[in-house]
Amino acid sequence: MIRVTIYNEYRHEKSEESVRNVYPNGIHNAIADFLRADDIEVKTVTLDDPDCGITDELLDNTDVLLWWGHIAHHEVPDSVVAKVRDAVLKGMGMLFLHSGHHSKPFKALMGTTCNLSWREDGAYERVWVIDPSHPITQGIDKFIYLEHEEMYGEPFGIPEPEKLLFIGAYESGEVFRSGCLYQRGNGKIFYFQPGHETYPTYYNKDVQTVIRNAVRYLVPSYREKELICPWVPRIDGK
Amino acid sequence: MIRVTIYNEYRHEKSEESVRNVYPNGIHNAIADFLRADDIEVKTVTLDDPDCGITDELLDNTDVLLWWGHIAHHEVPDSVVAKVRDAVLKGMGMLFLHSGHHSKPFKALMGTTCNLSWREDGAYERVWVIDPSHPITQGIDKFIYLEHEEMYGEPFGIPEPEKLLFIGAYESGEVFRSGCLYQRGNGKIFYFQPGHETYPTYYNKDVQTVIRNAVRYLVPSYREKELICPWVPRIDGK
Amino acid sequence: MIRVTIYNEYRHEKSEESVRNVYPNGIHNAIADFLRADDIEVKTVTLDDPDCGITDELLDNTDVLLWWGHIAHHEVPDSVVAKVRDAVLKGMGMLFLHSGHHSKPFKALMGTTCNLSWREDGAYERVWVIDPSHPITQGIDKFIYLEHEEMYGEPFGIPEPEKLLFIGAYESGEVFRSGCLYQRGNGKIFYFQPGHETYPTYYNKDVQTVIRNAVRYLVPSYREKELICPWVPRIDGK
Amino acid sequence: MIRVTIYNEYRHEKSEESVRNVYPNGIHNAIADFLRADDIEVKTVTLDDPDCGITDELLDNTDVLLWWGHIAHHEVPDSVVAKVRDAVLKGMGMLFLHSGHHSKPFKALMGTTCNLSWREDGAYERVWVIDPSHPITQGIDKFIYLEHEEMYGEPFGIPEPEKLLFIGAYESGEVFRSGCLYQRGNGKIFYFQPGHETYPTYYNKDVQTVIRNAVRYLVPSYREKELICPWVPRIDGK
Repeated sequence: MIRVTIYNEYRHEKSEESVRNVYPNGIHNAIADFLRADDIEVKTVTLDDPDCGITDELLDNTDVLLWWGHIAHHEVPDSVVAKVRDAVLKGMGMLFLHSGHHSKPFKALMGTTCNLSWREDGAYERVWVIDPSHPITQGIDKFIYLEHEEMYGEPFGIPEPEKLLFIGAYESGEVFRSGCLYQRGNGKIFYFQPGHETYPTYYNKDVQTVIRNAVRYLVPSYREKELICPWVPRIDGK
Repeated sequence: MIRVTIYNEYRHEKSEESVRNVYPNGIHNAIADFLRADDIEVKTVTLDDPDCGITDELLDNTDVLLWWGHIAHHEVPDSVVAKVRDAVLKGMGMLFLHSGHHSKPFKALMGTTCNLSWREDGAYERVWVIDPSHPITQGIDKFIYLEHEEMYGEPFGIPEPEKLLFIGAYESGEVFRSGCLYQRGNGKIFYFQPGHETYPTYYNKDVQTVIRNAVRYLVPSYREKELICPWVPRIDGK
Repeated sequence: MIRVTIYNEYRHEKSEESVRNVYPNGIHNAIADFLRADDIEVKTVTLDDPDCGITDELLDNTDVLLWWGHIAHHEVPDSVVAKVRDAVLKGMGMLFLHSGHHSKPFKALMGTTCNLSWREDGAYERVWVIDPSHPITQGIDKFIYLEHEEMYGEPFGIPEPEKLLFIGAYESGEVFRSGCLYQRGNGKIFYFQPGHETYPTYYNKDVQTVIRNAVRYLVPSYREKELICPWVPRIDGK
Repeated sequence: MIRVTIYNEYRHEKSEESVRNVYPNGIHNAIADFLRADDIEVKTVTLDDPDCGITDELLDNTDVLLWWGHIAHHEVPDSVVAKVRDAVLKGMGMLFLHSGHHSKPFKALMGTTCNLSWREDGAYERVWVIDPSHPITQGIDKFIYLEHEEMYGEPFGIPEPEKLLFIGAYESGEVFRSGCLYQRGNGKIFYFQPGHETYPTYYNKDVQTVIRNAVRYLVPSYREKELICPWVPRIDGK
């Protein structure tokens, strides 16, 4: 059983009718609804839970953590960020969604600005498959078509992706590295660009397929108990 | 002094008026004309020269080789391909242009199909800068605008680029990894997508800047004399 | 069921008693013996089979191909090499063992010399785990200890590995990138250095664990039917 | 003129005679002495300078920053760490030396633990050249021999290096990725393992050559003025 936890900031949905209309139960529940499966169990936590709902025990029992945040990244306490980062370095998989590019855990793990160019004009996007052989792109044709998405454009301030799986192309002409895979410590990390809060992106079947594939792919093979820098004896015992 | 050699297939220009009108002296001379500089000297060779004009002596005295070919890739003798590949592995820099993606030396160095999707419809392309800090992208604004280019689309059958410098976006909606950097052996290799023979791409100032930058970047730091797999004595002489 | 094929040159075992003593049924059968499992079925082929025993049908029905060769690399016909390379590019996994670094299929897929430094002095080797989180290194402690191995030393003429999983360190002081992971086309490729024909390396439990892990890891998620460079219609049908 | 700044913690030299005997003027001055050249000017700063001697003005006027620290990493204020990280992301080159693997700026830029195995037993180390073609390895033969070095062993908790230039091998049998190259934002970063404070490593001519080469290699091609995440207008002005 794959144990998934979804973190959602869950603010837009409460304060903006235009968002609530799309995601009445919050983005986290929209994602949980399609993710739950025979081999996947899902918990959800939100920013306004105590300590964002993120405890050591939860992280120890999470195989893959999804992260959606936007306007309140700065409200996530640094202590929670450190816990999440360390859980990834120990082995937990992590999927950052859309505006999660600017979340504290993503920036902490990447070490870069994670800046990009952006514009909210709701034009269409095509998210092109770059590697049709990867487990994460299985079930997707040449591209995912999204009638409305926020424009995220290059340059994207990330380390060179270890595998680039998707490139987004917008009606307005820009391009973006929309699906980027990394390993940090023992954990696998995937960034996936679609998912602006005012558009029904997470109801798109192809987006759901990618997220489901990613969850299965990000499951750890190995988890370290403690992150230490050990003194070691000589091999021969000298 | 950087010693550049430009290989051009030089067939389209002879047989098709539409190409000759754009490049009356051949693509090789159009490129040579803007490349020559105080620190760059240029030779040109073509497919119909004996052995493509490519000798051991020429390669030993070439710092960077440019390669434009299209309809007659198969006419390049395998012995010439092996010479070129080995020169790169020893340290020579190499810049593959446009349809050079399917040239024998590029395929030999990549080990993959180098296939892509394509369509010749002459719509516009924007070639976006992905890494504004790289020596090859200096002097280019956010993108290069080309009024007409052949469409080259993903998936592009190449190894994951060591650095992705440009992504092309076409009027028709496709995207392409248009500027890809590799090291093979001691040689640096750059693939740059623009340059269809019926469009005046090589007169574009930005394209010229990229090619000039690339030539300076690809110059070897080191060249191996012979490619061997040596037996070595024990360090301590045992 | 994972369908494995093992190619072995199978010459040393026939002509040299010192090798036959270690691998009386050939290296291929020694590997097949420990690989066979509830989820793994194994076929073997050898150089002296017609066309090396490698047919289109076999490759179409092989998930992972293992390759051991040494003194007779040049006897493998180029047509077989092309078939094997194309099967990898379509998606088949491939594991190159020891002196397979100089096999034609490995060189064709890497595009480089694959040269190295070497010396056959039978000193011990430690093969250190660099990434303890990878599926291929599971079950291995800090290093694999091999009492006798052929020395393979740097520089190793390969493209920068996409993941470096093992580094070998020899009694004689040299080091080597002993476990290197690549993707080429749709296929995953692993190179694993241990396995000289005069030492009982393939009876080592840790070496067996790595090979078994690798086989499971290299299974394709996706296979392309045909390697083509397609003309595509405009998305909008224009 | 390349403008180099060397940061040294400069505590061991003051408190331990065994270190002071080796580096009477501090490690920073030992490095400055061999780095100064016609094309390289050097400033030095230390932990006990106000704000570690690191100001915005200094960073704006530094092309490459070298960093040596060990027992007092935690005393470097987070505000200084943020300044240094941002200077790298804007374009400044950075060379982390030896125990700088655990410095706050290195960990901030890598996003990982940067943990390793270690033992101070003063056995010899060979630092093997993995890529003889790289500008940083020019002038070095097959390996650098250091009669005494601290053992730093794998696994090393870093992201996969973009280029691995050196592997260290110790008398005691361990190995280490001793020369690792990264790009983060617009800045190039090199980690170089040798340099324990009680050994005369920085007087070794080969180590000096590598550091000098690295400084010349790390000079930025481009520097960003401000790290921002810009809203951009539509290309067509809509």
